[in-house]
Amino acid sequence: MSDYEHLLVKQDGGTVRITMNRPQRRNSLTEEHLRELLDAFESAGRSDATGIVLAGEGKAFSSGHDFGDVAGRDLAGVRDLLRLCTTVMRTVEEVPQVVIARVHATAWAAGCQLVASCDLAVAAESATFALPGGKGGWFCHTPAVPVARNVGRKRLMELALTGDAIDAATAAEWGLINYAVPDGDLDARVDELLARATRGSRLSKAVGKQTLYAQLDRPEADAYAIATEVMASMSQSGGAREGMASFLEKRPPEWPD
Amino acid sequence: MSDYEHLLVKQDGGTVRITMNRPQRRNSLTEEHLRELLDAFESAGRSDATGIVLAGEGKAFSSGHDFGDVAGRDLAGVRDLLRLCTTVMRTVEEVPQVVIARVHATAWAAGCQLVASCDLAVAAESATFALPGGKGGWFCHTPAVPVARNVGRKRLMELALTGDAIDAATAAEWGLINYAVPDGDLDARVDELLARATRGSRLSKAVGKQTLYAQLDRPEADAYAIATEVMASMSQSGGAREGMASFLEKRPPEWPD
Amino acid sequence: MSDYEHLLVKQDGGTVRITMNRPQRRNSLTEEHLRELLDAFESAGRSDATGIVLAGEGKAFSSGHDFGDVAGRDLAGVRDLLRLCTTVMRTVEEVPQVVIARVHATAWAAGCQLVASCDLAVAAESATFALPGGKGGWFCHTPAVPVARNVGRKRLMELALTGDAIDAATAAEWGLINYAVPDGDLDARVDELLARATRGSRLSKAVGKQTLYAQLDRPEADAYAIATEVMASMSQSGGAREGMASFLEKRPPEWPD
Repeated sequence: MSDYEHLLVKQDGGTVRITMNRPQRRNSLTEEHLRELLDAFESAGRSDATGIVLAGEGKAFSSGHDFGDVAGRDLAGVRDLLRLCTTVMRTVEEVPQVVIARVHATAWAAGCQLVASCDLAVAAESATFALPGGKGGWFCHTPAVPVARNVGRKRLMELALTGDAIDAATAAEWGLINYAVPDGDLDARVDELLARATRGSRLSKAVGKQTLYAQLDRPEADAYAIATEVMASMSQSGGAREGMASFLEKRPPEWPD
Repeated sequence: MSDYEHLLVKQDGGTVRITMNRPQRRNSLTEEHLRELLDAFESAGRSDATGIVLAGEGKAFSSGHDFGDVAGRDLAGVRDLLRLCTTVMRTVEEVPQVVIARVHATAWAAGCQLVASCDLAVAAESATFALPGGKGGWFCHTPAVPVARNVGRKRLMELALTGDAIDAATAAEWGLINYAVPDGDLDARVDELLARATRGSRLSKAVGKQTLYAQLDRPEADAYAIATEVMASMSQSGGAREGMASFLEKRPPEWPD
Repeated sequence: MSDYEHLLVKQDGGTVRITMNRPQRRNSLTEEHLRELLDAFESAGRSDATGIVLAGEGKAFSSGHDFGDVAGRDLAGVRDLLRLCTTVMRTVEEVPQVVIARVHATAWAAGCQLVASCDLAVAAESATFALPGGKGGWFCHTPAVPVARNVGRKRLMELALTGDAIDAATAAEWGLINYAVPDGDLDARVDELLARATRGSRLSKAVGKQTLYAQLDRPEADAYAIATEVMASMSQSGGAREGMASFLEKRPPEWPD
């Protein structure tokens, strides 16, 4: 699949830009939209790109699930939809590329979950973040999973239980995003952070990212066991050898793949 | 048990207000006091209330265990007391209501643990928080358990190892509480946050809160497995159906139970 | 071993001061340097000291591994080195003394890992912190383990993926260190925080610190099980008994060992 109905995807140098493009529905995530996102991330994951920018077109980054696509489903149907959604979120974490969210506006419910699932996130000051199921209807159970792994417990509880939105400055202070920036600077700041995060050997960065997620939510001793074995193996890679050699020889590195 | 010696409990609309009322002993937590707290939270948990406010009367929110009730106990006796205390803390987390701490003053040791165990917390600017066992006597081992799940590691270490108090502004910055507010605004701000956190379908909010604790300290994949199954099931509930229907029909929701 | 080639170690009252002293190599961590650190921490751990200050001499706190000692090693050789390094880091956490990092300058890679592994850390405003493997060569897999347990996920990702340095004020805001202080105040502030953290019964503080690490990254129910048993046992110790007795008798405590 390379032509998408709900996405704009383009490769721009080493960066794949995936833009949700269903502005008339505030980039809400129907099953079809989620399938396209999954395909786009998996395709980018297989490509030689080093970075992925996830963005949204129109008045929202993403408003979450499309209730028009949920309301008529029975339990099994919703379960399938949520499992697909979870697969999308986990794929964002699992692809070898650095994934950065470019959040220009509303990131609510599963849209907020997407931001929490990206490795990095930069938002315009006018963007907002919410788990609106907390207002009383369908609680944002799955969006709360990665949000809980980005912000502290009291703040998670406030987001999840009240359903009210926080602004980008608060999201940055709480650790849900890396930076809140003036709206006009958004693209420049996204590209600047992504450039810094994708430098160097592609293999080194890919294994680096994937190992972070492997060790993150394990007990420290288990995390060390994983990280030690990977770091020892990677010491023999071209990237590590070149990094050390260029440092010792006081010259700029020439990165292998 | 509905008449308590050490507590004032009243239902105020959908809110149960549990106020520790042993001001002459700074609301220190004897075995009897803990038994009353457990009963009050369990009773509130079985009620149709949607929120619980935990407060303290007098010069302290709570100063922690009453050493007069600890000093004469042998190991088995202290163990029983601590197991009772842990049951109180876990019950605060497990009741289906949203629990908010109203912290007007000193919240130390097991008093600080109570704040850390509540879902939400708002404190007066003049309130203080400490794990005073760090000053050198009986280390605050169990209070440190929920505190560690609210604040970062270096800050936990400082609180637990020094025993010194932090003020409410610092507690808010570190994530131990949601807000530090002017003393005169405390009740209004507690009620305002609780009102936002208890809106909507009671069942949805109850399952929401309880599932948050179920997923919080598990690996992300396990957390998703839990959250996905619960969220799929809850999609068929009256609250979720009404939330989605009212959104799609562009009308205010009328929440079922 | 009491004479070290790469360390200065002196006991100063109840404090052992371990100073990395290979300024010509920016206190980079060769195998020999790591063996000396391990020996120094194990020796201090067996001593009657109550606190340990970890510092660095010269232009850096520590710049991490010495590539001159890594570049020629095969996989098995690097694995041995990293396992030794991990043992050093875990020993910092496991010794019964309170360990505080005195960070006057660059703390990069395994140097940043040392800071993250100390119980407490105070840094001069001019100090910097980085996981420079993120610039593209040998990714900082093992340094990211304790850093991930000090700061939030998005900030970890930024540190680990970009490799760029943050200043001390940012490190304090993110929770990687306790305080960023004016350069001229560094020693005073380190000593002041350590003094507060080492007061009281030595046994109480030692068990307190070690139990914190035992419960930190376990599910809350498991953490409570550990903390409850330890706290019940410790209620019978001389420190706890004196702490409670002196409080009840309204007199200053006289701490036993």
